Amino acid sequence: MNHGTTAPALSVGMVGHAFMGAAHSHAWRTAPRFFDLPLRPVMSVVCGRDGARAADAAARLGWADSETDWRRLLERDDVDLVDICTPGDSHAEIAVAALEAGKHVLCEKPLANTVEEAERMSAAADKARAVGVRAMVGFAYRRVPAVTLARRLVEAGRIGEVRHVRAQYLQDWIADPEAPLSWRLEKDKAGSGALGDIGAHIIDLTQFITGERISSVSGHLRTFVDERPLALEHSGLSGTASTERGAVTVDDAAVFLATFTTGAVGVFEATRFATGRKNGIRIEINGARGSLAFDFEDMNVLEFYDAEEPAETAGFRRILVTEADHPYAAAWWPPGHGLGYEHAFTHQVVDLVTSLAQGEDPHPSFADGLQVQRVLAAVESSSDSRTWQEISA
Amino acid sequence: MNHGTTAPALSVGMVGHAFMGAAHSHAWRTAPRFFDLPLRPVMSVVCGRDGARAADAAARLGWADSETDWRRLLERDDVDLVDICTPGDSHAEIAVAALEAGKHVLCEKPLANTVEEAERMSAAADKARAVGVRAMVGFAYRRVPAVTLARRLVEAGRIGEVRHVRAQYLQDWIADPEAPLSWRLEKDKAGSGALGDIGAHIIDLTQFITGERISSVSGHLRTFVDERPLALEHSGLSGTASTERGAVTVDDAAVFLATFTTGAVGVFEATRFATGRKNGIRIEINGARGSLAFDFEDMNVLEFYDAEEPAETAGFRRILVTEADHPYAAAWWPPGHGLGYEHAFTHQVVDLVTSLAQGEDPHPSFADGLQVQRVLAAVESSSDSRTWQEISA
Amino acid sequence: MNHGTTAPALSVGMVGHAFMGAAHSHAWRTAPRFFDLPLRPVMSVVCGRDGARAADAAARLGWADSETDWRRLLERDDVDLVDICTPGDSHAEIAVAALEAGKHVLCEKPLANTVEEAERMSAAADKARAVGVRAMVGFAYRRVPAVTLARRLVEAGRIGEVRHVRAQYLQDWIADPEAPLSWRLEKDKAGSGALGDIGAHIIDLTQFITGERISSVSGHLRTFVDERPLALEHSGLSGTASTERGAVTVDDAAVFLATFTTGAVGVFEATRFATGRKNGIRIEINGARGSLAFDFEDMNVLEFYDAEEPAETAGFRRILVTEADHPYAAAWWPPGHGLGYEHAFTHQVVDLVTSLAQGEDPHPSFADGLQVQRVLAAVESSSDSRTWQEISA
Amino acid sequence: MNHGTTAPALSVGMVGHAFMGAAHSHAWRTAPRFFDLPLRPVMSVVCGRDGARAADAAARLGWADSETDWRRLLERDDVDLVDICTPGDSHAEIAVAALEAGKHVLCEKPLANTVEEAERMSAAADKARAVGVRAMVGFAYRRVPAVTLARRLVEAGRIGEVRHVRAQYLQDWIADPEAPLSWRLEKDKAGSGALGDIGAHIIDLTQFITGERISSVSGHLRTFVDERPLALEHSGLSGTASTERGAVTVDDAAVFLATFTTGAVGVFEATRFATGRKNGIRIEINGARGSLAFDFEDMNVLEFYDAEEPAETAGFRRILVTEADHPYAAAWWPPGHGLGYEHAFTHQVVDLVTSLAQGEDPHPSFADGLQVQRVLAAVESSSDSRTWQEISA
Repeated sequence: MNHGTTAPALSVGMVGHAFMGAAHSHAWRTAPRFFDLPLRPVMSVVCGRDGARAADAAARLGWADSETDWRRLLERDDVDLVDICTPGDSHAEIAVAALEAGKHVLCEKPLANTVEEAERMSAAADKARAVGVRAMVGFAYRRVPAVTLARRLVEAGRIGEVRHVRAQYLQDWIADPEAPLSWRLEKDKAGSGALGDIGAHIIDLTQFITGERISSVSGHLRTFVDERPLALEHSGLSGTASTERGAVTVDDAAVFLATFTTGAVGVFEATRFATGRKNGIRIEINGARGSLAFDFEDMNVLEFYDAEEPAETAGFRRILVTEADHPYAAAWWPPGHGLGYEHAFTHQVVDLVTSLAQGEDPHPSFADGLQVQRVLAAVESSSDSRTWQEISA
Repeated sequence: MNHGTTAPALSVGMVGHAFMGAAHSHAWRTAPRFFDLPLRPVMSVVCGRDGARAADAAARLGWADSETDWRRLLERDDVDLVDICTPGDSHAEIAVAALEAGKHVLCEKPLANTVEEAERMSAAADKARAVGVRAMVGFAYRRVPAVTLARRLVEAGRIGEVRHVRAQYLQDWIADPEAPLSWRLEKDKAGSGALGDIGAHIIDLTQFITGERISSVSGHLRTFVDERPLALEHSGLSGTASTERGAVTVDDAAVFLATFTTGAVGVFEATRFATGRKNGIRIEINGARGSLAFDFEDMNVLEFYDAEEPAETAGFRRILVTEADHPYAAAWWPPGHGLGYEHAFTHQVVDLVTSLAQGEDPHPSFADGLQVQRVLAAVESSSDSRTWQEISA
Repeated sequence: MNHGTTAPALSVGMVGHAFMGAAHSHAWRTAPRFFDLPLRPVMSVVCGRDGARAADAAARLGWADSETDWRRLLERDDVDLVDICTPGDSHAEIAVAALEAGKHVLCEKPLANTVEEAERMSAAADKARAVGVRAMVGFAYRRVPAVTLARRLVEAGRIGEVRHVRAQYLQDWIADPEAPLSWRLEKDKAGSGALGDIGAHIIDLTQFITGERISSVSGHLRTFVDERPLALEHSGLSGTASTERGAVTVDDAAVFLATFTTGAVGVFEATRFATGRKNGIRIEINGARGSLAFDFEDMNVLEFYDAEEPAETAGFRRILVTEADHPYAAAWWPPGHGLGYEHAFTHQVVDLVTSLAQGEDPHPSFADGLQVQRVLAAVESSSDSRTWQEISA
Repeated sequence: MNHGTTAPALSVGMVGHAFMGAAHSHAWRTAPRFFDLPLRPVMSVVCGRDGARAADAAARLGWADSETDWRRLLERDDVDLVDICTPGDSHAEIAVAALEAGKHVLCEKPLANTVEEAERMSAAADKARAVGVRAMVGFAYRRVPAVTLARRLVEAGRIGEVRHVRAQYLQDWIADPEAPLSWRLEKDKAGSGALGDIGAHIIDLTQFITGERISSVSGHLRTFVDERPLALEHSGLSGTASTERGAVTVDDAAVFLATFTTGAVGVFEATRFATGRKNGIRIEINGARGSLAFDFEDMNVLEFYDAEEPAETAGFRRILVTEADHPYAAAWWPPGHGLGYEHAFTHQVVDLVTSLAQGEDPHPSFADGLQVQRVLAAVESSSDSRTWQEISA
């Protein structure tokens, strides 16, 4: 075991250093300490528009250097991989440029703010792949061990043909009408609201677990609170509370019905107004031979119902996904010692680095990200037209 | 306390004696033993088409007499109230005739198989009311104490303005493709499948708890298994297994989005294919000030989140709805001694008898049942047209 | 099927008509309506010291007649079985006399207030058995379907050799120091407090489920509140609140360690001071091949862990004990339609009547009740001596 | 914010690099990245008996250097604090020497293998404190946010006077009789079995949360499997399975009753034979005004029952301990994004470093560790004598 210490280096440059930047930094730092990686991640440089903040982020998050222009980051020799943690409106430009510069790319979700951008990114990824440059989109929840186990059980046929998918992503952080505006509530930066921010996750997760794709949707978007107080940085004031208000230009909640390519029926709901639910990613899948259920608020557990069990002893079993046999678990602690949110990002780094070393495509690909983007667009379009919309292949 | 023993009699005639008939009989027998009723139910007569079976049912279920023709039952002087427990295709004819004969009516849900029938029934109920004859539709789940408590908390403003309604009725009894045909899978008898049989319940429950009405829907019906083995009575054979198959003419699952009159967004799912879920009536309602959650598979519990609680100690609380202060509970056992499925029917009798004695309209009314029928029809129509449908007022 | 209507009669006389009397009455009334009994229970007569109250109870609970002296009840020809629902201090006298009068006996738990009384009762039961007269003690929780299933799984070897038993009976109805005195808090009537009232249940349940007996104990009894306001009937006043206080002469809580005959280790706790727990009978049993867990506050569920399952998919499964294959369930409702507290009493009647018709001994026997009494006595004695006590065989 | 980058250094030397060493290393590395520490931890040197393994551990776990003799580590100038992660038999010697050498000490639990050792350590800590050198014992579970919140609520009087403590630490890793011997099953290295290894945690946790101390115990130790296969390293063979067996010299399970100084009654159970329970630290505390419940297998949740709430809406609330107002949570992720096992160690570092910078005593102190040791000894002694044992003050 080299524990990454003698393995070839993989130098990383990260763009953006907010919530996602912190999670990614922790992952790059932690992965080689618990997993025996074939490449040794080097945290070279972090990029942010404000120089002082970027330097501070470098110190705080553990990057050797900082930059203020992502274009300069792409020019650096000590960057083999660009990790994009900015809002969605900048993804396409940075990712395409990075791939063209021969840098591997890990891009946070959603892949882009529009289908058109996602198509350009996916095309760029295809082109880059031909010369050994890889691209991955950061749907990190795929690497929660319970989710990975769910995929494994479906793949092994344990629940049979999938009939029902029900998925909810429930938060409540803006249920209060006086919660201030943020970039996540502005369409030009965020692309959409609950739909793209959290709905994208449950689209990706259900397609990942089932191995199927959504083929048509009937959706409904809703904005419960149209106007909110400007945060201070918006109003240009400082030290004084703003009384100005700004328009919320994205959805607060998105609900949609879906059909899957192989016949399953789906029901989806993404909202920031589910009072009392904090990060409730709930997925239940019913198949002909069994069922699976997951709730991120109890993230170390996967529930599994095996319909082949005699009725006398059949029941949803609460699998504590911390056994050495479970995905990723052997690298961590003994059974029953649960993992947390950030571990999914660490596992994402592990899988990405492993794919790069083996010359394989990491998943989810930009094509996967594009497909999610198409579903998001179809939901929006369906909400406008009040009819079902097909997802183009 | 007269415990119904010296109270005036209320003579009951019941039509149908299968699953629902057993539940209703138990309720008529049990209500006066635990509740101090203003009228004393007398179980006069039960009606079934087959004379021997009807007589056996009378003995088994505790009715004094039996009939084979419901028209004769309407002519009897020892019948003040007609309790209709037959399949939906006969509801309209029996109920209208009974009301016209001056008998109070308790009619099992769904009120009817079509909107037209339900309209006739509702009109008959209106006419009867004018002469002091009452009609009630048997959405018994309203009287599960946890559900009644949910209504009480919404009414008291404890969850504020309702934003999200999510409701599922999950069963799995025909998930196996070899489960035989039954009248519940035939459109001419049952009207619809999962939609009308169990979807009707969650429509009524969510409207009851929120005090709001569904105003538009986008629905999708699905039949996963088109053909099933005939049960022996269908095939005309006896003592021999049938190899014949018959067509399933109703939906196996129904999903729909909904908007409510005052702006809430709803997501509904009713299915008989949710492997591992047996009678999973799950309702969650998110409001501006709090949330409520219920699951019939843990029916003595209501979960309540109070958003006015400080964040440090806020959380969904598991209210065991068995305290003397809780609906119906004082009549039964000490705290923590849970009730079962059939208690809801007993409570239905209690409320119905009380309304009759007080000369008030019991709820849910036939008008409520008609409105549910309109939602069911709109879901079907929406599934056909693949567009949203409005519910006429 | 005769549904008990043409079966030979079994005439019942019940002594006592409070909480337990109501539960037993419901059971005698309900059992023949759902189960096909070999004997037809006839609710002949109820006995209570106060004539007016007894007559009222007869009307309310459905008994044909009432008596004020249990000795007269024993003389009646229309009493084949005496059902004893009085406080524990009168059990021995009534039960022994009833058995000697040739009446079958169903006696509420705990069997008696002292080992000596229980020994006399057990001896009387042995003598009566010789002439075909049967005795049963009413540990009704054995007949909660999930509990019966637990016994069945242990008997089938599904959890292997039992190593750990942990059992709690948690209530909180006197956690408030101002809750008034009741006969349950007075040693001369109740024998003991939490220990005998509810601790007796978990002793019986764990011995029943495991098929093993407790062989030694180390116990500790505690009275948290020594003095309480007299209830009005105690103080002799009426219509005025009492300011007098009386002494609590029993334990508020009892905890004890135990060893079982075949080597398992047990931990027991019975309390009326577990704030927030209403009727929390929790039993967990860990064996070499699996584990079982039960909580009465979710009484339709049995949790089962099968250690022979591969680690990847092993987990406690939540068995909803409502399938036709489950104990007692086929007589009631479809899967997922849960039962309540009083169903256990109905099942007790079913099993008792069946045993009587078949000339077999019903369980639990008076000998079983005596053994529980010995454990209770050993716990008390151990609490006094602060050493372990053996249970005599 | 300096994020530890410009703060004065705190150089750490760690002894031992197995399971606990990995957890501590992660904590030292991670704490300054998420918390704004007043001292900057420097991971100077790790010590292990085998030079190659120690060097490998240094590389893998991120220590700058390695040593093979802990005495040399104490001599180094680049060690301000010694972090002891070895088995219990070496704690006393290393800790006392470190304190005498003027090094702060963080010592893993249990503090020692005997009361005598713990007394020496506590005396050494007292002496060191006088010259500003601090000692802390590593009961890390105190720093699980839900546990810290429990302490906070008790301290604020939210559950009132404590009446019941029930605590279980349930594991099953040696339930299989063929699981091999390890040092944890040998008395000379481990001191005791389940009692000291995991029982120590629930003793510390319940005393911490309640703010009370255990004053007397009645205990029972049990070894279910006396003999086990030697692991290969024991047998001296390599590459071949051993058929030799060795004696298990510690308890497999420990159960005990306890009284607390202020009158609460406790029931404790620690076992490695609770089939299906992996790391089930379950603590429930019932007080006069409320109750708390915690289960480490759902570690981000604290359950709280407030008895001052009206009965209608009272219930155990499931507090997801991830709000900014909750202990430690603001440094991590948004609400609902749960933490894992290792976070408790990171919080331990945060609190320790903060105490050191402020010149305050960190908790739990060596005196706290000594008191736990005395309870452990009393349980063992009680198990031998079969009588209650007092805990000396």
